[in-house]
Amino acid sequence: MMSTEFADPLRTLYLDWVARMQADPEMSVQIMRDMQEGRHTVATEPKGVSYESVDIDGLSAVWSIPADADPTTVVLYFHGGGFVTGSAHSHRKMAGHLAREIGSRVLLVDYRRAPEHAYPAQVDDGVTAFRWLIDQGFAPNRIVSAGDSAGGTLALALVVSLRTRGLPTPGAVVTFSPGLDWDGEWMVNEENDILASKAIIVAMGSLAFGDRNTKDPLCNPTYADLVGFPPVYLSAGGHENLLGGIRKFVEAADAAGVEVTLDVAPSRQHVHTFAVGNDPEADRTITESAAWARERLG
Amino acid sequence: MMSTEFADPLRTLYLDWVARMQADPEMSVQIMRDMQEGRHTVATEPKGVSYESVDIDGLSAVWSIPADADPTTVVLYFHGGGFVTGSAHSHRKMAGHLAREIGSRVLLVDYRRAPEHAYPAQVDDGVTAFRWLIDQGFAPNRIVSAGDSAGGTLALALVVSLRTRGLPTPGAVVTFSPGLDWDGEWMVNEENDILASKAIIVAMGSLAFGDRNTKDPLCNPTYADLVGFPPVYLSAGGHENLLGGIRKFVEAADAAGVEVTLDVAPSRQHVHTFAVGNDPEADRTITESAAWARERLG
Repeated sequence: MMSTEFADPLRTLYLDWVARMQADPEMSVQIMRDMQEGRHTVATEPKGVSYESVDIDGLSAVWSIPADADPTTVVLYFHGGGFVTGSAHSHRKMAGHLAREIGSRVLLVDYRRAPEHAYPAQVDDGVTAFRWLIDQGFAPNRIVSAGDSAGGTLALALVVSLRTRGLPTPGAVVTFSPGLDWDGEWMVNEENDILASKAIIVAMGSLAFGDRNTKDPLCNPTYADLVGFPPVYLSAGGHENLLGGIRKFVEAADAAGVEVTLDVAPSRQHVHTFAVGNDPEADRTITESAAWARERLG
Repeated sequence: MMSTEFADPLRTLYLDWVARMQADPEMSVQIMRDMQEGRHTVATEPKGVSYESVDIDGLSAVWSIPADADPTTVVLYFHGGGFVTGSAHSHRKMAGHLAREIGSRVLLVDYRRAPEHAYPAQVDDGVTAFRWLIDQGFAPNRIVSAGDSAGGTLALALVVSLRTRGLPTPGAVVTFSPGLDWDGEWMVNEENDILASKAIIVAMGSLAFGDRNTKDPLCNPTYADLVGFPPVYLSAGGHENLLGGIRKFVEAADAAGVEVTLDVAPSRQHVHTFAVGNDPEADRTITESAAWARERLG
């Protein structure tokens, strides 16, 4: 049970979003995007981190740069938001905290979003960013692919895509509440999960995937051949629906001999790490996933 | 005339906002706030600036901290947005650029907004923040009061309020497109100004002021006794409606013997400094106002 003393700011935020969506069932994509940009309000500013705008051949991105960053390692981060909402900006603080804990720069990519851009344009943008990092001199195994929610899907789909193309892969993958159940087959918390109901997950998936098969390994890496995959860290909230799909991935990865770590934050909601700085469980997951990644980078 | 080669990103943003407001004449305050949070998208990230969340007796604020900041000087910054929209967050990048150019920390205050909080709650929060800075050890004359649009009104109204209370005043005031014409008496660019039409300015003012007299010196410092006021820097876009009211303030300040500097950016829109990093005129105003403030701080 959640401690009655802890008032989860993310829970409050999600309750507000859900109330607004219920009050406006025809909410436009634009209004939903604007609303969800406010995610960052539940996090504190990470201390000692500066930022830099970059242009990667037309793709906008933002560097999070902790003081004394290790110049040889880097995190390529995909923001979440169902492929439709979210941005480098809405996820800046969380990425900044992660950068600070790992001691590496984090590159937050503003990949093309659905529905204007159908899947897998988002993965293709990830490949562009990954190749750009290699051009900047980073060794592939010194790169961490990371993301939350649909961005967690992308962090894993990047590896699938790179392998299909015969390209080198990142040294590790870190995901927070990755979307690995776009059909809602394995959902486990329909009553506890405030935001990510089955209906919402399935609707966001179809906006991005259109007629594409949701069991395509690029849409759901659980269906990929995982043998030889880099180590993967997955976190999930104990009260979230996607935990079921995340467990399925962990089983599949484990069966394929992949080194896989599952971190479940008791009683927390979808992407509990958003509240970093304001939730001890969010802080713990950021710290532990960063330490895990740091070890995998050698 | 504006050069045909320069595509002003702020102009594009404002055209988009106006189209959205015209398509939804009953736009809620919440939707307008969310929309206007996107202001920051026209600016680049300032390099070498980090941030820190602070709580000032229940008032949220954000420090912008440039590398090698002068520990003895500071800027107290009031964001704009007609007293109704805007936040420390929507103005973070602009404040960060200013911090970097001045070489001082900037404190961005999330003052209470209208219409939930009637004027002058916003000024009172400014007084709270100013006193807090003094408690932190800053000498009053080493503090710059700054702001844009309605935040520019507040940056000046803070001085009015401090004088009324018999408290020491800041060493200088820097304002970008301050709101000094809440009745729309002196507007000069109704045809060129994309966002700040007379109707919008008057409407935003009445949301905050209610029945309060708009000629109250706290609502419009042009009506204050300006004798003994600290030096004031005011910038305005050459295509903005508020330029008329800004010129009125300059005349009044000049007549009262106040050191006053007016910077008009040719063909630019309301708060052209938002596009800092992406507009040479925005960069110039930030650089020149910072150099001006730095000189006034001694």
